[in-house]
Amino acid sequence: MIAVLKPGASQEQIKNLIAWLEDRGLKVNLSEGEFYTILGLIGDVSKIDTELLEGLEMVDSVKRISEPFKRANRKFHPDNSIVEVGGGIAIGSGFQIIAGPCSVESPEQILEIAKSVKASGATILRGGTFKPRTSPYDFQGMQADGLPLLLEAKKQTGMPIITEIMNVVHLPLFENVDIIQVGARNMQNFELLKELGMIKTPVLLKRGLANTLQELLMSAEYIMAGGNSNVILCERGIRTFETYTRNTLDLSAVPVLRELSHLPVIVDPSHASGIARLVEPMAMAAAAAGANGLMIEVHNDPPNALCDGAQSLTPEQFAALTEKVRRVYEVANK
Amino acid sequence: MIAVLKPGASQEQIKNLIAWLEDRGLKVNLSEGEFYTILGLIGDVSKIDTELLEGLEMVDSVKRISEPFKRANRKFHPDNSIVEVGGGIAIGSGFQIIAGPCSVESPEQILEIAKSVKASGATILRGGTFKPRTSPYDFQGMQADGLPLLLEAKKQTGMPIITEIMNVVHLPLFENVDIIQVGARNMQNFELLKELGMIKTPVLLKRGLANTLQELLMSAEYIMAGGNSNVILCERGIRTFETYTRNTLDLSAVPVLRELSHLPVIVDPSHASGIARLVEPMAMAAAAAGANGLMIEVHNDPPNALCDGAQSLTPEQFAALTEKVRRVYEVANK
Amino acid sequence: MIAVLKPGASQEQIKNLIAWLEDRGLKVNLSEGEFYTILGLIGDVSKIDTELLEGLEMVDSVKRISEPFKRANRKFHPDNSIVEVGGGIAIGSGFQIIAGPCSVESPEQILEIAKSVKASGATILRGGTFKPRTSPYDFQGMQADGLPLLLEAKKQTGMPIITEIMNVVHLPLFENVDIIQVGARNMQNFELLKELGMIKTPVLLKRGLANTLQELLMSAEYIMAGGNSNVILCERGIRTFETYTRNTLDLSAVPVLRELSHLPVIVDPSHASGIARLVEPMAMAAAAAGANGLMIEVHNDPPNALCDGAQSLTPEQFAALTEKVRRVYEVANK
Amino acid sequence: MIAVLKPGASQEQIKNLIAWLEDRGLKVNLSEGEFYTILGLIGDVSKIDTELLEGLEMVDSVKRISEPFKRANRKFHPDNSIVEVGGGIAIGSGFQIIAGPCSVESPEQILEIAKSVKASGATILRGGTFKPRTSPYDFQGMQADGLPLLLEAKKQTGMPIITEIMNVVHLPLFENVDIIQVGARNMQNFELLKELGMIKTPVLLKRGLANTLQELLMSAEYIMAGGNSNVILCERGIRTFETYTRNTLDLSAVPVLRELSHLPVIVDPSHASGIARLVEPMAMAAAAAGANGLMIEVHNDPPNALCDGAQSLTPEQFAALTEKVRRVYEVANK
Repeated sequence: MIAVLKPGASQEQIKNLIAWLEDRGLKVNLSEGEFYTILGLIGDVSKIDTELLEGLEMVDSVKRISEPFKRANRKFHPDNSIVEVGGGIAIGSGFQIIAGPCSVESPEQILEIAKSVKASGATILRGGTFKPRTSPYDFQGMQADGLPLLLEAKKQTGMPIITEIMNVVHLPLFENVDIIQVGARNMQNFELLKELGMIKTPVLLKRGLANTLQELLMSAEYIMAGGNSNVILCERGIRTFETYTRNTLDLSAVPVLRELSHLPVIVDPSHASGIARLVEPMAMAAAAAGANGLMIEVHNDPPNALCDGAQSLTPEQFAALTEKVRRVYEVANK
Repeated sequence: MIAVLKPGASQEQIKNLIAWLEDRGLKVNLSEGEFYTILGLIGDVSKIDTELLEGLEMVDSVKRISEPFKRANRKFHPDNSIVEVGGGIAIGSGFQIIAGPCSVESPEQILEIAKSVKASGATILRGGTFKPRTSPYDFQGMQADGLPLLLEAKKQTGMPIITEIMNVVHLPLFENVDIIQVGARNMQNFELLKELGMIKTPVLLKRGLANTLQELLMSAEYIMAGGNSNVILCERGIRTFETYTRNTLDLSAVPVLRELSHLPVIVDPSHASGIARLVEPMAMAAAAAGANGLMIEVHNDPPNALCDGAQSLTPEQFAALTEKVRRVYEVANK
Repeated sequence: MIAVLKPGASQEQIKNLIAWLEDRGLKVNLSEGEFYTILGLIGDVSKIDTELLEGLEMVDSVKRISEPFKRANRKFHPDNSIVEVGGGIAIGSGFQIIAGPCSVESPEQILEIAKSVKASGATILRGGTFKPRTSPYDFQGMQADGLPLLLEAKKQTGMPIITEIMNVVHLPLFENVDIIQVGARNMQNFELLKELGMIKTPVLLKRGLANTLQELLMSAEYIMAGGNSNVILCERGIRTFETYTRNTLDLSAVPVLRELSHLPVIVDPSHASGIARLVEPMAMAAAAAGANGLMIEVHNDPPNALCDGAQSLTPEQFAALTEKVRRVYEVANK
Repeated sequence: MIAVLKPGASQEQIKNLIAWLEDRGLKVNLSEGEFYTILGLIGDVSKIDTELLEGLEMVDSVKRISEPFKRANRKFHPDNSIVEVGGGIAIGSGFQIIAGPCSVESPEQILEIAKSVKASGATILRGGTFKPRTSPYDFQGMQADGLPLLLEAKKQTGMPIITEIMNVVHLPLFENVDIIQVGARNMQNFELLKELGMIKTPVLLKRGLANTLQELLMSAEYIMAGGNSNVILCERGIRTFETYTRNTLDLSAVPVLRELSHLPVIVDPSHASGIARLVEPMAMAAAAAGANGLMIEVHNDPPNALCDGAQSLTPEQFAALTEKVRRVYEVANK
């Protein structure tokens, strides 16, 4: 860590600051420039609160040299992490495709879609029962009633299941869920992250709408610091000024996260754009960029259904996509 | 609500869609243009899920005409809401100044600051005990241990207190807190909002880092829909590309929120910029723009303190500010 | 176009507005809802200034239904446009790779790189001579002196060349340039665009750092409205809050632009991230997403060179990339 | 300037880099940490291209300590700059209000508005003749024909005038213009800035939609480096995700620019929000934040005019505003 002091800092102030830093077990390397004085802090700087240091009158700026995350850091864990999610499926090994409806609606619906996506090559089943909705007047999902339906589909198809948690008090309901999803809006719900750190169930952590990649890794660190290292990162689009797509899928997140961290990275092209016909090109782009898998919304399509989500693929579209996307993955990543 | 249909929509499709909409109790006004057909939906459209409608093959786009929020809407509540917060203080009436330290650190610290800011004209005391920190390794606040200290300062000074909640299970601890703060990172923690809707304690709801003003009002609506209408909105800066300030304070939020809603609006200039010397000019700007009050971080400043937050004012700076800011408020809002 | 009127609009006002719109040759379809009155405007609405209409006291909002761009619009030109750029190369047909150094530095440098990238499969040579730099004290390129060097490299290799223009008065210097590049900072330099509309040389138009896809197409429309339909669109990253990469490459721009417009779309992964090791994964992602080609920075690398741009590939890295990226393109787009 | 080297940098590489830096006249201070080696560069670092240095294989990151702008820097020019603009008016002294229509439309219109805003306390007249419009089909202003109308209004009222330039070749037409405006879209049209550096006419430089405050100051530096130190900075809103207002007015820009630079700072609340009823609160907020003046759109309002821009004030609204805003300025800045 480097602290740049302001031109006017007195010798007395500098001496006091160095003493304070040394009290915290750091070695301090003083370097006096023409205009500025620079302190190089050597040792375990993870205990230093950067913002507090920057707040000091005499400090111009502070620069971290090492990343503030450790357990998620590839530097201390060079090999890729592989997260076993049940049913013999592992994320981080090969290319996994998670598919299913936005919401669980009925026993028939979830089972039909589960069978269909399995036949098309999906390896994990998704389905929301607790749904975060911007409006309190919109459908909030089947809530606790949806979980048994999802578990029944798991039983009948043998697919591991993933579903979203929104409240720490619901945790007991998720006992037989294979992957617990933390949605974008809860990426910095630190109390929830801490609880998820105390169990062993794999957690798929979605990037928040306006969160940097470093913040995503710090949230993964919250879970890992508690003892649960089964964390899967998920890029799902960030908020920008562009209005044509709902969000802007940041695919450079894939190689950057793979470089900074050993955790697997999944891409959700359905939520990013909010437009079904963009799912295929963006899914292929994600595979080419080196993602470890995809999460895609698929909905069965009875002729008269009016509730076909803007971003969901039909089973037929999904089947066509999986084949293509696997070929792209192989060509790009061999 | 208006639904614009795609050029290729067949008469059969249009007929089916109209029937479906009429089943939901809406009157449908059909208007056929040269290239497009437009449906005007009249009646209670709050039950229509805009995204679902937009997802239909035949639909080009959907436009809400009336806002999706009701209880927070000034149209249905033309008079300003005034939120009584205890100790004879009401937010929405006059200009209220909330002040105190970022974190409660000790009985002496919080009491000393409380007395000092009260003497300078603050009417409500702030102090964090549960602190949302990006890193799991940073100080997380005194947690539950901090609340009695804050309550003691309330008792001794008579000031109502505000502090942040991060977890629904902590709610019983907040029984004697006068205003419960929902932080920016939890603005869309809908499960928390629902719980806060079931009590009567005033809630100060901070705008999320990347949330629109409409989303802020929808989150207020979550609380109000549950029966708690004591909601105070708070602008505290949004995330942009600018890096000089930590966030960009969006002061146009003040007149816009005051126009769209009857709820009081508070501005937090300390968190927005993260820089103490910007607090005064931005506090005055907020007062000039018509805010109902401010929330400002103040920290006592023993000579050798190293933990003077980058954004905190000293009691002296705070005293100078309150006087100036009240004069600006009077000149601008009379 | 739809104009939604405010609840309080009087019959007199509505009558006057309709008369005014009809004077402009439009047919007006009146639809009165419970709370709102809606005008559907039918006919040539391109002459209506949306902002002016929205500015009227009685108007709540205005919604364009048809896109404001015509010549760039796929609706009126369903087939893909193919831009012939000389040397038998056409952008929009197959997958074209533009490569070369950020700046032309010397006759030897540009020629050596030209030969090298040609051998590796590049079909067009890039090289900047007028360089837009944030600081007036940074190297501004060889300016007019660099163009003859680039033209000599074209002569010796037979490759068409592309270079950036920054000033309308330089246009005569670009006579033998095959593609004129308009940089991100000049995307809305409308005076420059108008001049480029009056020649026939192909123009590669880069998306501005904070410009929407519709604004990019409107800038293409400026060039095309003047008579030059040889426009190539280029996505090169947008400005967001993320700081790890210099910009955020918005790859959904590729399928969206291909859908809205018939113009070819090129991706520049070098400028987007500013990091050489991200160029390969993002180049493959761009190819998978359906781009018509790439623009990549390549620099020769004498052992002791200190000026190896952070985002430039070595000729060896480039050679490895071209092979891989072409295979991805074929698998994804057949 | 500090360069942090990567852990793997060899002694040979470090030696070569230091030699190269010393060749450029810098003194290099080597500081070896546990994991990283840090070079402190002392001397005139303005000649070092940060990006090139960061691009070196062995370099992890580079941090500028001193700002890259000099002539605009308050450190080297502690006193406020005052820009004389003719007619005895000086920007940077007192509080100046620039007012007038978005576009010059006719001799009567501009003259009427000029007289009206002068009577209400405006000191400088604005009026656009070359108008940057997103669409080539929108009204582009009266172009060269509008300038004589503006000059005539200047003659009759004695007010100095400001109008926007969009093309370097138009410069001779601006001979008698008192302040030349560079619009947001041309903030990084470096060729235009260089030309404006070679004259003495004051330049009002608007911040680009997605430009940082440092980039704004670097663009001011382009003008000043050429010899023209009569630069006025203007904040007019930045592009964010918020859609209610057209742009987000970043008022913290005012105190930040005033701190970093000695140049005067003007705020344009009309363009920022695009909504007339937000102009007054934001104008007062700008005055309270310490701006040196305002630029406001005012349009005369014949009863049946349909072209009343969404963001223009009527002369009556403007008169009410000027009085209030001057009082706020006095209270906040004395």
